[in-house]
Amino acid sequence: MKVVVALGGNALLRRDQLPTADNQLENIRTAAAQLARVALQHDLVLTHGNGPQVGLLALQAAAYVKVEAYPLDVLGAQTDGMIGYLLEQELANRLPTTRTVTTLITRVEVDPQDSAFQHPTKPIGPVYSKADSERVAANKGWVMAPDGEAFRRVVASPLPVRVLGLQAIRWLLEHGALVIAAGGGGIPVARTGEGGDQGLQGVSAVIDKDLCTSLLARELQADVLVIATDVPAVYLDWGQPTQRAIGQVTPQALAGHDFAAGSMAPKVEAACAFVLATGRRAVIGSLDRIEDMLAGSAGTQVCLASAGGADTL
Amino acid sequence: MKVVVALGGNALLRRDQLPTADNQLENIRTAAAQLARVALQHDLVLTHGNGPQVGLLALQAAAYVKVEAYPLDVLGAQTDGMIGYLLEQELANRLPTTRTVTTLITRVEVDPQDSAFQHPTKPIGPVYSKADSERVAANKGWVMAPDGEAFRRVVASPLPVRVLGLQAIRWLLEHGALVIAAGGGGIPVARTGEGGDQGLQGVSAVIDKDLCTSLLARELQADVLVIATDVPAVYLDWGQPTQRAIGQVTPQALAGHDFAAGSMAPKVEAACAFVLATGRRAVIGSLDRIEDMLAGSAGTQVCLASAGGADTL
Repeated sequence: MKVVVALGGNALLRRDQLPTADNQLENIRTAAAQLARVALQHDLVLTHGNGPQVGLLALQAAAYVKVEAYPLDVLGAQTDGMIGYLLEQELANRLPTTRTVTTLITRVEVDPQDSAFQHPTKPIGPVYSKADSERVAANKGWVMAPDGEAFRRVVASPLPVRVLGLQAIRWLLEHGALVIAAGGGGIPVARTGEGGDQGLQGVSAVIDKDLCTSLLARELQADVLVIATDVPAVYLDWGQPTQRAIGQVTPQALAGHDFAAGSMAPKVEAACAFVLATGRRAVIGSLDRIEDMLAGSAGTQVCLASAGGADTL
Repeated sequence: MKVVVALGGNALLRRDQLPTADNQLENIRTAAAQLARVALQHDLVLTHGNGPQVGLLALQAAAYVKVEAYPLDVLGAQTDGMIGYLLEQELANRLPTTRTVTTLITRVEVDPQDSAFQHPTKPIGPVYSKADSERVAANKGWVMAPDGEAFRRVVASPLPVRVLGLQAIRWLLEHGALVIAAGGGGIPVARTGEGGDQGLQGVSAVIDKDLCTSLLARELQADVLVIATDVPAVYLDWGQPTQRAIGQVTPQALAGHDFAAGSMAPKVEAACAFVLATGRRAVIGSLDRIEDMLAGSAGTQVCLASAGGADTL
């Protein structure tokens, strides 16, 4: 099967961890051990989040005051190089030397008129107390938003419109390579048309990596899209006494329910968009059950009714 | 022709400029305009330096004290993502949309016993006064070395032994893609064998981008290797009243002369290694004359005696 897997940024740097190089490498090794087993059985395209990582780079850039911090497209490209390198290395270490593992930097076009630029919603970086949040908002011009009891920086998250460089990914897949691409939802670029330049230019934003991966999986005509996160499934009534995991389900049934914005909601939206466009299957669940998710026995399996998905919940 | 071009890191961020995002982008646009014309005529693999960029990331990482700075392999991967993205975008903006431009993250194996690890020589980042140099050496544990009147941080620069991921580059070239790869000399990795792990792990070092590009050009059987920098040629008696540019020359003739360590010396060494291994041509000169360099009418043209290179200087 041709499998596209989106790996959560929090799976690589958990919220309860300091974002050190050692912690990141240890998490990447754990993920690579799971993913290498998948790669031995299937054609694999791997994408990954970068929320904690781009947050750290933004803090580091802000701490060095002699040079103004680089915009988010550039910081995102930095995280793609870093995370891609580490994933590639740990995957290659666990695969036969004959298997090519390669990391591509991927640009993704967005609409410069996307309303997200006026309404930043995507949290990046660490959580702050209310007082600290107000201080960094004033000092750095960041937009902050509540996150549970705390506050986090939020940035614009426009919708992905077009994945650039698809042809290179297709060629590499045809040759049997494991391709790491579209890290952090891809680097956001847009036709700004400034100064008569009709070319693409970076925009300071972060694209949701699940929505981007869904678009990529559609363009690559993947057999299955896997959204690997740190919970075993999509839940109804998350955090309530009535909480229950969803097994097989149709996009239509999911459409009647609300999920956590910026967290489970984009994953559900990404899975449904893939299933509705392709008639194929998407799975949301825990990375450590990825083989069972592919086998259909773990995670929330999103498929059309004709394939056995429950169409009411 | 199959052309491999190494683009100097200083061509992307000059020493006399603040390393801002705007300055970097402006320089990259200038470089891309030159390189796009080459790409229209030839198969092109582009590598680039990252000295000023990795220096900046190291400073930013050191400025944010809550998390220990990431090692140089990881910072190098960050610069490869960033510079590769910007080069890819500006090149693609100047080429037909049918031309695939793609950026690969490239690991390069080094020998963990390389003596460079005991004798760091590669300068990265800004220049410091003597007093500032002593302060950062003490604070950050960096090794500092004189650079003209000033001081700079120096890091280990082991020799490149093997370019990983060559097969992906070859496949993409066969399909006609313009490939950006091996940024910053590649990300240094080694078989450390620690803890019984026989796989490759990153090492905190920086590989000379010209020596790495020479190895890459040999492996790809390039027709010509171009080392594009900010001077028009290799000079004898650089900075002396007797200074003169070298035109056509053999590796044998160059071997009898000394060039500036860490600057022109590795370029000359890289060019000669390519010519001696392949019998083909290498050119060292100024990026803004790259078309003339390819035509044989600018830069220092290094070739075997039989091809017309002067064999004494």
